[in-house]
Amino acid sequence: MATTQEVLAAMLARDSFTEWLGITIDEHRDGYCRLHYTIRPEMLNGFGIAHGGILFSAADSAFAFACNADGQLTVALDVTISFVKTATAGDVLSVEAREVHKGNKTGFYDITISNQHGDLIALFKGTGYRTGRNIVGE
Amino acid sequence: MATTQEVLAAMLARDSFTEWLGITIDEHRDGYCRLHYTIRPEMLNGFGIAHGGILFSAADSAFAFACNADGQLTVALDVTISFVKTATAGDVLSVEAREVHKGNKTGFYDITISNQHGDLIALFKGTGYRTGRNIVGE
Amino acid sequence: MATTQEVLAAMLARDSFTEWLGITIDEHRDGYCRLHYTIRPEMLNGFGIAHGGILFSAADSAFAFACNADGQLTVALDVTISFVKTATAGDVLSVEAREVHKGNKTGFYDITISNQHGDLIALFKGTGYRTGRNIVGE
Amino acid sequence: MATTQEVLAAMLARDSFTEWLGITIDEHRDGYCRLHYTIRPEMLNGFGIAHGGILFSAADSAFAFACNADGQLTVALDVTISFVKTATAGDVLSVEAREVHKGNKTGFYDITISNQHGDLIALFKGTGYRTGRNIVGE
Repeated sequence: MATTQEVLAAMLARDSFTEWLGITIDEHRDGYCRLHYTIRPEMLNGFGIAHGGILFSAADSAFAFACNADGQLTVALDVTISFVKTATAGDVLSVEAREVHKGNKTGFYDITISNQHGDLIALFKGTGYRTGRNIVGE
Repeated sequence: MATTQEVLAAMLARDSFTEWLGITIDEHRDGYCRLHYTIRPEMLNGFGIAHGGILFSAADSAFAFACNADGQLTVALDVTISFVKTATAGDVLSVEAREVHKGNKTGFYDITISNQHGDLIALFKGTGYRTGRNIVGE
Repeated sequence: MATTQEVLAAMLARDSFTEWLGITIDEHRDGYCRLHYTIRPEMLNGFGIAHGGILFSAADSAFAFACNADGQLTVALDVTISFVKTATAGDVLSVEAREVHKGNKTGFYDITISNQHGDLIALFKGTGYRTGRNIVGE
Repeated sequence: MATTQEVLAAMLARDSFTEWLGITIDEHRDGYCRLHYTIRPEMLNGFGIAHGGILFSAADSAFAFACNADGQLTVALDVTISFVKTATAGDVLSVEAREVHKGNKTGFYDITISNQHGDLIALFKGTGYRTGRNIVGE
């Protein structure tokens, strides 16, 4: 059985898009992940604010790190995101993912995004489907 | 009042992240947008498949182009996405956004993502809040 | 293997709350259900309009009839509903559920509610988890 | 300006469906509501478990009581519900609604349903649109 650290290392080793996002993981354990990243000019949309996909993506990475931390491959099934406040270039966003409930086949996670002033930026709620397969060593 | 073409041009002129995604717009009119893009290696996650945020982002762009086409600034409020099938590097994904209903303050949109074989990849449903402000000429 | 009619009969035989709602099923086949019902005074909330739960409930019944029609027990996992327009006592609401995609373990369904004037009342999107168990004959 | 108590009294005075549900409100203040109710045989679906609409409805009532407590009429716009565990006749369900964020035009609420054993039954996330109109005295 892989440790939480081994699972994260295996996931990060090949995660090109998370790398592009410039994410730093601050805390990671079973069912939990906290990370931060900085909004860059190439992450903006036509209105000069962070593209919705940029907010979603970092939350989705945190969700993946939290729900796969037990070593069992879990894939996102349904996700809801609510956009509360805009972010722009230079903003440092913190993302916190926590497990609400984990069953045999499914897991439910809440992820929040806030900025450097503590303002809520977006709310993300994800349902993962647990495949029963191991991430490391299969 | 700006035309649909002027609105799209204004939005694309500064949309750095949509440009990074490599999106080509195939059709655009009031309440509708169809586009396609190719999944590149830097868009993959730690499992070697397109990052969920990459799927979300293109759908979110199509949503924005469709719901802003009438020239009134509309911002995403709540979005739901269901992941049906994975995509990987080299896949050419088509995204189609269509308006389901537009009211005075809100608009509801369905966006589907499918691959080059016609397989359904993801379902995206977005609610936009209509701000009452013009995109061009304010 | 049970027929679609046998499955529906088995589901309706004990469905006390669908009966309380006063639902009439107009069309039912694999992956599809269309029904209607009338809003009664006891279905209203404190603002004199149909309680959100009354709209959700009829859509949820249509969802269940559509996704279980193939005889394999499918349970609702995640549902999203958007409330577009209010309904009140005397309104006759039509509910149409259709399958968007059915995989091995999950199914995705769109359900719309409209009133007697053809106005859109609510949009309902449901993800079902397919248990692999038969509804009839187990 | 109406007090929280006056707003709740005005809402409950006419809320026929919440009355049918048999809801008892245990705690209510600005942005918060906690209530409980008992699942009755007439609330079951064709599988002998609480109809999804019965779970949704009580959560929707709690949502309405929490988001309208400040006296400004707020209507549900988008709601997501995840069904975690079934409930059946005789189960006593507790519903807790809390405000996550309230802005000028929108408010975001988390509602959880749990049973008499403390098991999580469903997760409900609601976005309300704040109309700017007063509930009492208009």
